[in-house]
Amino acid sequence: MTAPNVNTLWAETLVEELVAGGVDAVCLSPGSRSTPLTVAFAEHPDVEVFSHLDERSAAFFALGRGRRTGTPTPLVCTSGTAAANYHPAVIEATQSGVPLLLLTADRPPELIDSGANQTVDQEKLYGDAVRWYRDMPEPEAEPRKVRMLRTTAARALAASTGSDPGPVHLNCRFRKPLEPTRVPADHPAGVPDDWAGGDRAAETGRDGPFVTTSEGGATPDAAAVERLRDAVAAADRGLLVAGPADGGLSADALERLAAATGFPVLADPLSDLRFGPHVERLDVPVCGGYDGYLGSDAVAGWSDPDVVLRFGASPTSKPLRRYLRDADCRQVVVDPTGGWPEAEFTATDLIVADEDATADALAAEPLGDIDTAWRERFATAERVHWDAVAATLDETYWEGGVLADATALAPDPTTLFVSNSMPVRDADRFGRPRAADLTVLGNRGASGIDGITSTALGAGSATDDPLVLVTGDLAYYHDMNGLLALGRCGVDATVVLLNNDGGGIFHVLPIEDHPTFEEQFRTPHGLDFEPTGALYALDFERATDRREFGERFGASLDRDGTQVIEVRFDAGDSHAVRERVAERVADRLADA
Amino acid sequence: MTAPNVNTLWAETLVEELVAGGVDAVCLSPGSRSTPLTVAFAEHPDVEVFSHLDERSAAFFALGRGRRTGTPTPLVCTSGTAAANYHPAVIEATQSGVPLLLLTADRPPELIDSGANQTVDQEKLYGDAVRWYRDMPEPEAEPRKVRMLRTTAARALAASTGSDPGPVHLNCRFRKPLEPTRVPADHPAGVPDDWAGGDRAAETGRDGPFVTTSEGGATPDAAAVERLRDAVAAADRGLLVAGPADGGLSADALERLAAATGFPVLADPLSDLRFGPHVERLDVPVCGGYDGYLGSDAVAGWSDPDVVLRFGASPTSKPLRRYLRDADCRQVVVDPTGGWPEAEFTATDLIVADEDATADALAAEPLGDIDTAWRERFATAERVHWDAVAATLDETYWEGGVLADATALAPDPTTLFVSNSMPVRDADRFGRPRAADLTVLGNRGASGIDGITSTALGAGSATDDPLVLVTGDLAYYHDMNGLLALGRCGVDATVVLLNNDGGGIFHVLPIEDHPTFEEQFRTPHGLDFEPTGALYALDFERATDRREFGERFGASLDRDGTQVIEVRFDAGDSHAVRERVAERVADRLADA
Repeated sequence: MTAPNVNTLWAETLVEELVAGGVDAVCLSPGSRSTPLTVAFAEHPDVEVFSHLDERSAAFFALGRGRRTGTPTPLVCTSGTAAANYHPAVIEATQSGVPLLLLTADRPPELIDSGANQTVDQEKLYGDAVRWYRDMPEPEAEPRKVRMLRTTAARALAASTGSDPGPVHLNCRFRKPLEPTRVPADHPAGVPDDWAGGDRAAETGRDGPFVTTSEGGATPDAAAVERLRDAVAAADRGLLVAGPADGGLSADALERLAAATGFPVLADPLSDLRFGPHVERLDVPVCGGYDGYLGSDAVAGWSDPDVVLRFGASPTSKPLRRYLRDADCRQVVVDPTGGWPEAEFTATDLIVADEDATADALAAEPLGDIDTAWRERFATAERVHWDAVAATLDETYWEGGVLADATALAPDPTTLFVSNSMPVRDADRFGRPRAADLTVLGNRGASGIDGITSTALGAGSATDDPLVLVTGDLAYYHDMNGLLALGRCGVDATVVLLNNDGGGIFHVLPIEDHPTFEEQFRTPHGLDFEPTGALYALDFERATDRREFGERFGASLDRDGTQVIEVRFDAGDSHAVRERVAERVADRLADA
Repeated sequence: MTAPNVNTLWAETLVEELVAGGVDAVCLSPGSRSTPLTVAFAEHPDVEVFSHLDERSAAFFALGRGRRTGTPTPLVCTSGTAAANYHPAVIEATQSGVPLLLLTADRPPELIDSGANQTVDQEKLYGDAVRWYRDMPEPEAEPRKVRMLRTTAARALAASTGSDPGPVHLNCRFRKPLEPTRVPADHPAGVPDDWAGGDRAAETGRDGPFVTTSEGGATPDAAAVERLRDAVAAADRGLLVAGPADGGLSADALERLAAATGFPVLADPLSDLRFGPHVERLDVPVCGGYDGYLGSDAVAGWSDPDVVLRFGASPTSKPLRRYLRDADCRQVVVDPTGGWPEAEFTATDLIVADEDATADALAAEPLGDIDTAWRERFATAERVHWDAVAATLDETYWEGGVLADATALAPDPTTLFVSNSMPVRDADRFGRPRAADLTVLGNRGASGIDGITSTALGAGSATDDPLVLVTGDLAYYHDMNGLLALGRCGVDATVVLLNNDGGGIFHVLPIEDHPTFEEQFRTPHGLDFEPTGALYALDFERATDRREFGERFGASLDRDGTQVIEVRFDAGDSHAVRERVAERVADRLADA
């Protein structure tokens, strides 16, 4: 590789290796110090460029792509506070194990802490929130250094996508000239033709990545599998619990495990297992209504399970977490990252191993019969729950009703992103399992309401699936800047905006009765979001009832462009309906 | 103090001490984990509450208040990514020495790294960017612990406002119940009536702050003053250079120093010394046009100064920094923080001492005469520069012309905030020194374009001065969320929006000639900002020429509410006019 100067050489080499390692897109934000990286990415024929003006939105967009694809979309920004705007997404990525690769441009070492403009301390900017960090050496046309650069590209990708995926930060220092300006060979910053001294690997890299990396999934310990198999075989009652996960236990492995154990499946909406063709193939119930009934008195009268097998993160559902906490039984958490996703400290066994390998090791032989009444209890509870939801939908409409409809009406396939605060909880309680291929995603690592729109659009940009985002008004406001990606990054979406003018979630907390509730917790903003239509060239629509919502939702999915469908609710009313459904279910279960 | 539970006791005590220490406002963002702090601040009669939905904007708003007042406005947010949204403003605060006090709510220790919801690693979240950090102990009604809390409040304020002011971070852990719910005295979390065991200071605090703090400014070393005095007395030619500073050298001390030395003053627009009554009182020229003429060939022919006295941060003007770098002379930097604001590494002497004390020590006795021709050179250059600006304004209008007008037309007094990228540079070159009390502010610590609107509105919220913000389209877009504070926080502003549809600054860089320039550097967005008027209940207006701008600008300052006055420019054209003015000045100086 020849280059007009060392910065160009360095940046082109890095990009070349990242592309060889599987990178096919980048999120660039404008800036001067990052010029070498920006030019190298923009000029690479195999890289799709997403240009973002707000680095916070850029990082969440890249997070969404990483969450959807399992491959990082590198982020490039200039020096200074730009890099700090990545921090919220970095935290979400580290908490939920999403690949992210941060390439922050920085000033050369001599300018650090000198008072030079736009020069801040970027070293270890994200602290312990990254899987790997390097303060990159200064670009130089020196064979060993360039080999290091090529190796670092492979290592960064491996670290961000390995057994414990997450963010990786390379702080990249450049000294002027930043542009691909030819510097004469006798200039100290120039690249002489023979710079590599015959080191071909340094100069031109290799066919494919400089280092081809692979990291195998951990096989479960045989003795642990044996103990577990004995426990399952001895159990009359058991459960398979799938918490939020991107990747993780596959539907096929779940199917084999369910067949071998006969245990009902409780599938978090973010587990990637509540929706999909397996839902109809399984002989055991795939449960999605547990958030509505596990807290009821009727269920409190059931016998405890003997064994619970858990996959994924801690479940979204608080009733489920409490049910598991109070169950006196063997609870086995399978977690390939060894991250102890144990918010209630219920686990009796932790198995650090690949989920599918563990499930298949267990399912390799028959595991005996279980109490069929146990399975029937869950099947009945599900029937009762979904009947109650349907009956309530015939009577009224509430925030959760929209989630019921959105999950029921979404085309097969769809990428469905649900915001934090109430939408994910309503998806959990009212999103009925379906045999359609819905990829339901959320930012459940840190559960922030920042960056929701950008994460959804990033996820949507990664596939040809229709994209549906269900969000609240606070999240819509918080990342309004993210809407710029609709036009700039060519993403179409159906955005369902549940507007209850403030923090509806606080209605479910005791602070509701306090005098500061309205101004400091519910925080009504009174924003009329309709002008966001003109601002971001989207169709801003409103639906006032269920019929209208269904029509507009369906029409949006049939149309090009982006439609925001606002449905207004009173948060207190919606919460009352949530409780009414739960009471209805509890009454019927008590009767049953 | 009695309280229903330990969280309430803890939060009320902290707020009480902060108020006793001078805090009179708070920036709250809604959330659950921060409930104790939110309630305690909201219920305190002497605290003005600014409620912000986007924590990034909240932090910049608090930064603006801190920059304008020198007192921190505490920030309160919930746990999780919320706190990471403060990071950009924290970096700006640390770089420019602005008091900021971050109170981040966090989960109790047992939930850290447990997979519990919205629980992330907030320890030392901002790394070395804070002046002081404490992971606060768990609230408890225990006298020594409460004394610690009261002391910590005083210490946090002292650390954020002391000799090296900046951000302070207290990570505040709370366990449920978070609301001010009465907990029976026999409950472990309850507060028994006799909890303090007669320790009155712990229980009720003291009259005034628990600890009354004071930190004196450093007196300059006598020997250093003597050496400096000798150098100044021996000098034929000298300069007083005032860089960006909030506080710092006062106009009175500058006046005495200028009288004693006879040196011309080069006053950065952010020095707080380019504008003010002293401008007409000084016998030496207060120069504001140097950015336009110091790089000219005529000036290159002048003799170097013998001595330069510098105050404040590294100047905004690159021509000035280069002039200082190339001057073969004694360069004395006075910096009370010992921060070495030395981007060009020009200093020969660093004096760590209070600026006024140093200036007065120098000015205590006459310092001899200087070459009056030297002073006349600067006076002439200024005349030529401002004549050229005026003549060019008669012919055409460009971005810099708006800054010339805004600084000339701003009422006395005004708080004028200038965005980074071009507005601050244009204010530097085209903002003529005036005898009016203009407080010109910018975020020049890290020079980001994030958070500009919020910082300006925060600064404006702290005084009754009219508030003028001059910003560009990228900065306007980046912190559009910040406009919500107009209504929510009761701030009126005149916002001058210089819209050149992208990154105009890149026109001044060599990348302008590269094929990636348009899409990845100038990054036109094509946004029509008019809908922000309807979104944020502001008057969105446009001015197409100088006359219209003047009319709308004047009318806005006479009216209530907020007016955004958009003036569209072609960035390349504006840059050409900048160069034309500089050539005009250079030609006249060459003739002179």
